[in-house]
Amino acid sequence: MPVDPGSAIEVTAYEWVPPMAKGFVKDMRVRWALEEIGLPYRERLFGGAGGEKAPEHVADQPFGQVPVYKEGDLSMFESGAILLHIGEKDERLLPRDPAARTRAISWMFAALNSIEPFIQTLFLMGFAAEGKEWQGAAKDVVRPFARMRLAQLSTALADREWLDNRFTLGDLLMVDVLRAAPEDTLLAAHPNLAAYVERGMARPAFKAAMAAQLSAFARHEPATA
Amino acid sequence: MPVDPGSAIEVTAYEWVPPMAKGFVKDMRVRWALEEIGLPYRERLFGGAGGEKAPEHVADQPFGQVPVYKEGDLSMFESGAILLHIGEKDERLLPRDPAARTRAISWMFAALNSIEPFIQTLFLMGFAAEGKEWQGAAKDVVRPFARMRLAQLSTALADREWLDNRFTLGDLLMVDVLRAAPEDTLLAAHPNLAAYVERGMARPAFKAAMAAQLSAFARHEPATA
Repeated sequence: MPVDPGSAIEVTAYEWVPPMAKGFVKDMRVRWALEEIGLPYRERLFGGAGGEKAPEHVADQPFGQVPVYKEGDLSMFESGAILLHIGEKDERLLPRDPAARTRAISWMFAALNSIEPFIQTLFLMGFAAEGKEWQGAAKDVVRPFARMRLAQLSTALADREWLDNRFTLGDLLMVDVLRAAPEDTLLAAHPNLAAYVERGMARPAFKAAMAAQLSAFARHEPATA
Repeated sequence: MPVDPGSAIEVTAYEWVPPMAKGFVKDMRVRWALEEIGLPYRERLFGGAGGEKAPEHVADQPFGQVPVYKEGDLSMFESGAILLHIGEKDERLLPRDPAARTRAISWMFAALNSIEPFIQTLFLMGFAAEGKEWQGAAKDVVRPFARMRLAQLSTALADREWLDNRFTLGDLLMVDVLRAAPEDTLLAAHPNLAAYVERGMARPAFKAAMAAQLSAFARHEPATA
C-alpha cells in the first residue's frame, strides 16, 4: 500500500471535509498517480478545508489548500506541478518518447485550464448563488461554455480508450476533472466521455487512492449528537 | 527579431480579433517567452477567433484555439505546456536547480489553475451576462473569490521583485494572467501586485511580443466603411 508513514515523500491532505467534498479534494490526483506506480507516501493531515489554516501550511501553499508535496528539499504545490514531477519518475505515467510526452503534457494543461475552469464556474454558480432567484439564469449563461468544451473533447477522444492511445497523466487529470461535473447531463450527452470517465475510475489505483482519502476522513469524523 | 519566416519553430496566431481581445490572445505568452531568450519563430495565422475554424487547425488544437507550437515532429497545444517545453531550452526561463525549478513550475500551474479561472469567471459574467438585470449580483458573488486569491498572492509575493527572487516562467504566466483582470480595483487593492504586473510588462521581451501580435492584426485589419 502506498500510504506508508516511513516514506520520504510527504503529501498533505485534510483530516476531514463536509460530505459534498469527500472524494474530490485534490490530493486525490496525487494519491492516484502514486498508486499507479506503487510509490509509497506519508500523509500529513491538516484541519478541514473551511477552518483556520495552520501558518506552516500557508507557508508551503500560498492559497492555504492541499496538496503540498515534499521530497527531500523539494516542496511543491499545485496538483498539476506535483503530477508532472511524479510523472518524470515513471514511464507508465509520462511517456519517454518526446512527441508522446509533449502530447500528454498538453492534455494535462487542457484538463486544468481548458476544461476544469468551466466545470468549476458552473459548480460555483451552484453553491455561491444558492437561493438567488437569478441562479438558474446564471447557470444557463455559463452552461453553453462547458457544453462546447465537452463536445470538443468528445470529438478529440473519438472511439479511443484514452486521449492518446495509452493511459497517461493527461487522462488521470482529465478523468479527475470530468468526474466532478456538477450536472449529470454534461457527461451523459457524450457516451464516449461518460465511458472514458468510468474507465478511469475503474482503475485499481483510482480506487486505492479514493479509499485512502476517505479513510483519513473516517478516522476524523466529528462526533454528532 | 524572433519573428522569422525561416525558423524551424512555428506558432499559430489569429490574423485579426476584435479590439477587446487585442493584446490578450494567448499566443502572447509564447511569443513573450521566445522573445526572452531570442529564439526565432515563424507565425502561422488563422482566421479570427470567432469565425469558422480551418479543419487543419482543429486537428492540432482540439478546442479550435491558438496557440499551437510545432517544432520538428513535436506538436503542442495549451500555452502552459508550450511554455514548459520552451523553458527546458533555457535556464533564463526555468532554473536548473531542482528546488527552484519545481517552485517555478508550481507558480506556472498556480497562475493557470488557481488565479486565472477566477479572473476569467468575472470576465465571463461581464460579457456573457451583458444586459441581464442580475449581472451585477452575479459579479458580486464571484468577486470575493477573485479577491481572496489575489490577497493570498499579494501576501506570497510580499516585497520581492518576482515570485521566487528571480524572473521565471511562473512570473511570465502570472503577469500575463493578472494584466487581464477585468476590474481595475482587483489589482489596485494590492500595490505590490500592481507594481509586479507593471514590472513584467516593462520587460523588453513583453513589449516585443505585444508588438508582434498587434502587427499581425494591423496587417489584417478589415476595411471599414
